Amino acid sequence: MTGRLAGRRVVVTDCNELIGPEIVDVFTEEGAEVLADSRDLTVPDAAAALIEEAGRVDVLVANLAVRVSGNFAHESDDAELDLMLDRLMRPLHRLTRAVLPQMMARRQGKIVVVGAGAALRGVPRRSVYSAARAAQHGYVRSVAVEAALHNVQINATAQTFVENPTYFPPHYQQTEEFKERMKNVPAGRLASAQEAARFLLTLAGRESDFIVGQIFPFTGGWVQ
Amino acid sequence: MTGRLAGRRVVVTDCNELIGPEIVDVFTEEGAEVLADSRDLTVPDAAAALIEEAGRVDVLVANLAVRVSGNFAHESDDAELDLMLDRLMRPLHRLTRAVLPQMMARRQGKIVVVGAGAALRGVPRRSVYSAARAAQHGYVRSVAVEAALHNVQINATAQTFVENPTYFPPHYQQTEEFKERMKNVPAGRLASAQEAARFLLTLAGRESDFIVGQIFPFTGGWVQ
Amino acid sequence: MTGRLAGRRVVVTDCNELIGPEIVDVFTEEGAEVLADSRDLTVPDAAAALIEEAGRVDVLVANLAVRVSGNFAHESDDAELDLMLDRLMRPLHRLTRAVLPQMMARRQGKIVVVGAGAALRGVPRRSVYSAARAAQHGYVRSVAVEAALHNVQINATAQTFVENPTYFPPHYQQTEEFKERMKNVPAGRLASAQEAARFLLTLAGRESDFIVGQIFPFTGGWVQ
Amino acid sequence: MTGRLAGRRVVVTDCNELIGPEIVDVFTEEGAEVLADSRDLTVPDAAAALIEEAGRVDVLVANLAVRVSGNFAHESDDAELDLMLDRLMRPLHRLTRAVLPQMMARRQGKIVVVGAGAALRGVPRRSVYSAARAAQHGYVRSVAVEAALHNVQINATAQTFVENPTYFPPHYQQTEEFKERMKNVPAGRLASAQEAARFLLTLAGRESDFIVGQIFPFTGGWVQ
Repeated sequence: MTGRLAGRRVVVTDCNELIGPEIVDVFTEEGAEVLADSRDLTVPDAAAALIEEAGRVDVLVANLAVRVSGNFAHESDDAELDLMLDRLMRPLHRLTRAVLPQMMARRQGKIVVVGAGAALRGVPRRSVYSAARAAQHGYVRSVAVEAALHNVQINATAQTFVENPTYFPPHYQQTEEFKERMKNVPAGRLASAQEAARFLLTLAGRESDFIVGQIFPFTGGWVQ
Repeated sequence: MTGRLAGRRVVVTDCNELIGPEIVDVFTEEGAEVLADSRDLTVPDAAAALIEEAGRVDVLVANLAVRVSGNFAHESDDAELDLMLDRLMRPLHRLTRAVLPQMMARRQGKIVVVGAGAALRGVPRRSVYSAARAAQHGYVRSVAVEAALHNVQINATAQTFVENPTYFPPHYQQTEEFKERMKNVPAGRLASAQEAARFLLTLAGRESDFIVGQIFPFTGGWVQ
Repeated sequence: MTGRLAGRRVVVTDCNELIGPEIVDVFTEEGAEVLADSRDLTVPDAAAALIEEAGRVDVLVANLAVRVSGNFAHESDDAELDLMLDRLMRPLHRLTRAVLPQMMARRQGKIVVVGAGAALRGVPRRSVYSAARAAQHGYVRSVAVEAALHNVQINATAQTFVENPTYFPPHYQQTEEFKERMKNVPAGRLASAQEAARFLLTLAGRESDFIVGQIFPFTGGWVQ
Repeated sequence: MTGRLAGRRVVVTDCNELIGPEIVDVFTEEGAEVLADSRDLTVPDAAAALIEEAGRVDVLVANLAVRVSGNFAHESDDAELDLMLDRLMRPLHRLTRAVLPQMMARRQGKIVVVGAGAALRGVPRRSVYSAARAAQHGYVRSVAVEAALHNVQINATAQTFVENPTYFPPHYQQTEEFKERMKNVPAGRLASAQEAARFLLTLAGRESDFIVGQIFPFTGGWVQ
């Protein structure tokens, strides 16, 4: 088997959401043995069970999705914040805790967090979402320093303006609001989900051996 | 009354923790009418009650403290992450939600979040703390964009290496570990809590009228 | 004499350009003894002569201005890049070199660089300007680490969308292009030059004693 | 021909310096047709001549090297700053100007700038070097926004702690100063030049089609 991830065992979470399907495709094409998982990771033991069932995991792709309400901060209640944290941050901690020990023991492994640009630049009606996405980045930075001593790398992206049915449904792409927003994107277009998935290869492969807790914007220039 | 905050009504939370006492002193000296509060903000209705009791609030200083365990990420359980979020992020959302409407209605107001450098640069044994502190910053960025339309400003610091009994007890300052860490601080010293409090004046006063969702490192050069 | 800069001797360069006049006014109101200078700092010995004539300098405000051509990068020649560097970067190095020794000897002093947001976020038709403005920031970061050991602080702003005749002449403010650009500014307005000058007080006074080589965006939320 | 850069014509400048030799090797292995060039790019017409001789250029790797003096800022004269700009910034502008038009005309092309971490975080005795390296980054950000409209991408790295004879000669790696510096590198080691070169593949290939003026730290966690 050839390819950039030949022989690597990769777990992809929320595999039917966000850019999950494309990660599975792209990583498989590059030679990885992909375990695509769609279980509900808000269940406390789900993450541990997933990793235990998976056995050896060379790469964990923490692709975690949630639907946002679009409320303003002052209209958003505790439940909304909790939902964001329950879907985006708690599973990340559980997955990391479950998979890090085996990676550290083998002195090899990658955790790739599919993050969001809204963590780095403010967006109206996204306050609690931005909070949970920024939490992922802060977590990655500190875990990375711990993991690096064991030759395990954890890094994240900060993607936005990536074509996907959750955030950019086709009908929304026809609205004036969308066209107005695209003026802020120097690339002048949405990325395809496949492009976003391909970008992750760099964080999943040997190219990230010297990258420790870095956040990689993938935003068409919206964040520099 | 003269001073940089003359006539402003300021609420300071967790007033006995972190740099709370010094904020109260410094802001009072600068002419503010300070409502120093120490209630437990993990109680769901506490934030709303605080703001209701306070009446008009010109400046909210969200000074929120928590004690960290010092565990590695893979040793840290769900409860530890939840504690961080319960103390640092949930109260911030509740306080913001409670105080923003009156500020927006008056088209004037400041929310100042006392944040942490560990959100911006990884620190071992701080993973869940870094997550919660980064959540604060992400939240600030997006709320700021909403609030700016109503002429209300919300900004945050990212402080570290500030002298305080929670993070830098005197006995710790004698250790080799501490001295080793200080080598990473270009300023070559800890800041006093009073210095950190004085820095907040800029975010509490008119000088921040044009500052929208900015994170101000206050770290002696540890983060640039 | 009272005020935030009472008794401080402050040099302000290019005092008739950019926000020079407002810096002079605001700093004088705050008790500083201001030496407003307008000599041509592209002359190699001008910076050294200025500092020598000034005698004791507690605060140097490196306010350096240049007019931009508006060319695209591929239309911009060597001379245009050189002009940017001649006006923005070379004088900064000369001023710093001239004033640092006296500040280090007294173990007290501040250098405040009035920088530009275009260094942090790309703007079309500003390539060589962005380069020179970013050079200022890179320089500040490294000099700051050296100077901190001697208790001297050097920091910079990254301002943009500040009302001034060089970059935002009144007639331009009526154009559609300007209104389109303002959509990118969460604050929804230009800052006045006086506001920008007041923001510098924080970097010129004791509040920056623990701030080492930090870049402070002042952009109405355009850069976060 | 297969490989990630199959069929691409790539120009690598200063091919015998910094990580030039490894870029040539790695890119050639990945199927690129590499034009390794070592001419002196401080000569005003050299960049234009290089591009003209090269003909079609799909990828320009601006690998530009200079030897630093190690002086403090206040000991560093105009000539030292000029040397940095002459080697690092002026050639970048000339190369970009020479190659952009053909790339924009074909609506395809990549410019990859090998940048330095010292632009993002201050280092003592590197003031003018940091300035010139930061200038590269500022330039990249603004040119990127212009080029993106024509589907051309320009991005940069910010590398440091990469093994190379210019900055980390073997004898220096034995010193206490070096070992002290390595404590600041979470990865706990230098990167090999080959690793650094491999990282550039992401910026040279299709994976960067949606990346506009981004700076990618490659520092072992020294900058996050």
